[in-house]
Amino acid sequence: MKKYCFGIDIGGTTVKCGLFNVDGEVLDKWEIKTRTENNGENIIADIAETMNAKIAEKGLDKEEIVGAGVGVPGPADEEGNVPVAVNLHWGFVPLSKELSEKTGLAVRVGNDANVAALGEMWKGGAVGYHNVVMVTLGTGVGGGIIINGKIVTGSNGAGGEIGHIHVTDSVDKPCNCGNTGCLEQVASATGVVYLANKKLASCDTPSVLRDGEVSAKSVFDAVKAGDAVAQEIAEEFGRYLGLACANIAGVVDPQVFVIGGGVSKAGKILFDYIEKYYKKYAFPSCKDAKFALATLGNDAGIYGAAKLML
Amino acid sequence: MKKYCFGIDIGGTTVKCGLFNVDGEVLDKWEIKTRTENNGENIIADIAETMNAKIAEKGLDKEEIVGAGVGVPGPADEEGNVPVAVNLHWGFVPLSKELSEKTGLAVRVGNDANVAALGEMWKGGAVGYHNVVMVTLGTGVGGGIIINGKIVTGSNGAGGEIGHIHVTDSVDKPCNCGNTGCLEQVASATGVVYLANKKLASCDTPSVLRDGEVSAKSVFDAVKAGDAVAQEIAEEFGRYLGLACANIAGVVDPQVFVIGGGVSKAGKILFDYIEKYYKKYAFPSCKDAKFALATLGNDAGIYGAAKLML
Repeated sequence: MKKYCFGIDIGGTTVKCGLFNVDGEVLDKWEIKTRTENNGENIIADIAETMNAKIAEKGLDKEEIVGAGVGVPGPADEEGNVPVAVNLHWGFVPLSKELSEKTGLAVRVGNDANVAALGEMWKGGAVGYHNVVMVTLGTGVGGGIIINGKIVTGSNGAGGEIGHIHVTDSVDKPCNCGNTGCLEQVASATGVVYLANKKLASCDTPSVLRDGEVSAKSVFDAVKAGDAVAQEIAEEFGRYLGLACANIAGVVDPQVFVIGGGVSKAGKILFDYIEKYYKKYAFPSCKDAKFALATLGNDAGIYGAAKLML
Repeated sequence: MKKYCFGIDIGGTTVKCGLFNVDGEVLDKWEIKTRTENNGENIIADIAETMNAKIAEKGLDKEEIVGAGVGVPGPADEEGNVPVAVNLHWGFVPLSKELSEKTGLAVRVGNDANVAALGEMWKGGAVGYHNVVMVTLGTGVGGGIIINGKIVTGSNGAGGEIGHIHVTDSVDKPCNCGNTGCLEQVASATGVVYLANKKLASCDTPSVLRDGEVSAKSVFDAVKAGDAVAQEIAEEFGRYLGLACANIAGVVDPQVFVIGGGVSKAGKILFDYIEKYYKKYAFPSCKDAKFALATLGNDAGIYGAAKLML
């Protein structure tokens, strides 16, 4: 009988690993370094080695293990191939096949943002829902779309690339993707700093943000302290993110939006700004969609990866 | 052995009916009137009667019939209940259950716009694709999203309500949905007329559109004839629709957008305007999505309904 499953989340610096039971309890959790040198040629062997070592350490029988789910920072196809993963220095890598050969286990592969969304649905901020949109507000804005419990991968692996929804004509500087006016430019941690600097330059209103370095954290701390300029910045942030979520709802009509990533550490105060504009722009029957904070933090990837396999 | 299937498309004026073989060939096609009086209480009985009559006429055995798929102008849940369908004067109707009882056949129900998308995927403009977005440019703008061959119904039956994606702050008049700046206000047949009248009022440039009544057809006829004002109107139309499609691609990353409805009779010239802006706004890996014209016209509903069952 199958009792265990691995969840592996490959990042550009570390590979996060989890050993789960089939009920989704994490039995052990550890990290190894991601060796990206020589086009990342050691990454798969390193993962196989740490998995095999864990199996030996715990005295497990491979027959008891369902397999390993793996999240990667790039697109992944249905066969578990990774066409390209810039942060791993990978070109085309048949990840599922190679890791399976080196471990004797079944392997499934998904994009890390999508896999994190699956993790939050399974054991995090979206437990009990099966139509979920995850919005990760980090250095950039990532996303994952879950319909009827399944990840929407997209035809080019670009399902859930919601950071590049066009939300404004007011930004001139190009986004990393080459377009301009992407959600990521105005709603990521970097985007909040961009909005803050623009606002501070456009007015003389006193603000605590004029002392010291501006960050997404300092902006939302100032919002909580009642700083008027910070609140105007939060309004603009909320308008863009609320608009994007409303437009996403007009496509897939989710039950819940789960907000994660560094910016989400500001907490529920974000929802005051996001939901205000979400309700303004959303199609009437979608206006009551829930907003929830992600709860798994950096572990969303290993949870979602395990769920991918289960 | 199962050989046949019904496809039924309930509209506010007529019920379109098709008898198909399981390969998707239409064997017979007819219409009955939709009797909406008395809260539409006769509609289901009328459909059952026409189906049973057709079975008798063709000398079919019910054992040979897979069942009936039905498209309705409103949301439908997984059990085939219709919570409300304004154009049929229906409140909550357990359509699948009632039609099944009256015919002895299995019945599946879907929203008409979603079902039409399925029809175009199966036998129309999107044959060979399984990730499809249909955009219907009629009096309003409807939509249907197909992921891995399955309709995205949404949590509130609002999957594919792309006519209400917010695309502009430049419209003051409210949309039928209550919001402002919806795609439907600037890209439906009515929306094209709105853009045309606004443009004609804002300039003195000579245009054939200044003679006679403006319609979506007259605008695109003038575009084809080289009318400069009409071409500017088409640019604005294309910008809004291209932007909306780009933002949809950032959510579900389809292989193809199928454009149908009355406005699509203008033909492939639409794509010159839509794709220009689609490519401007879409995330790089989605920029090569195909655009195709719908080919089934008013029959998309019966085809899609049959496919719902097969």
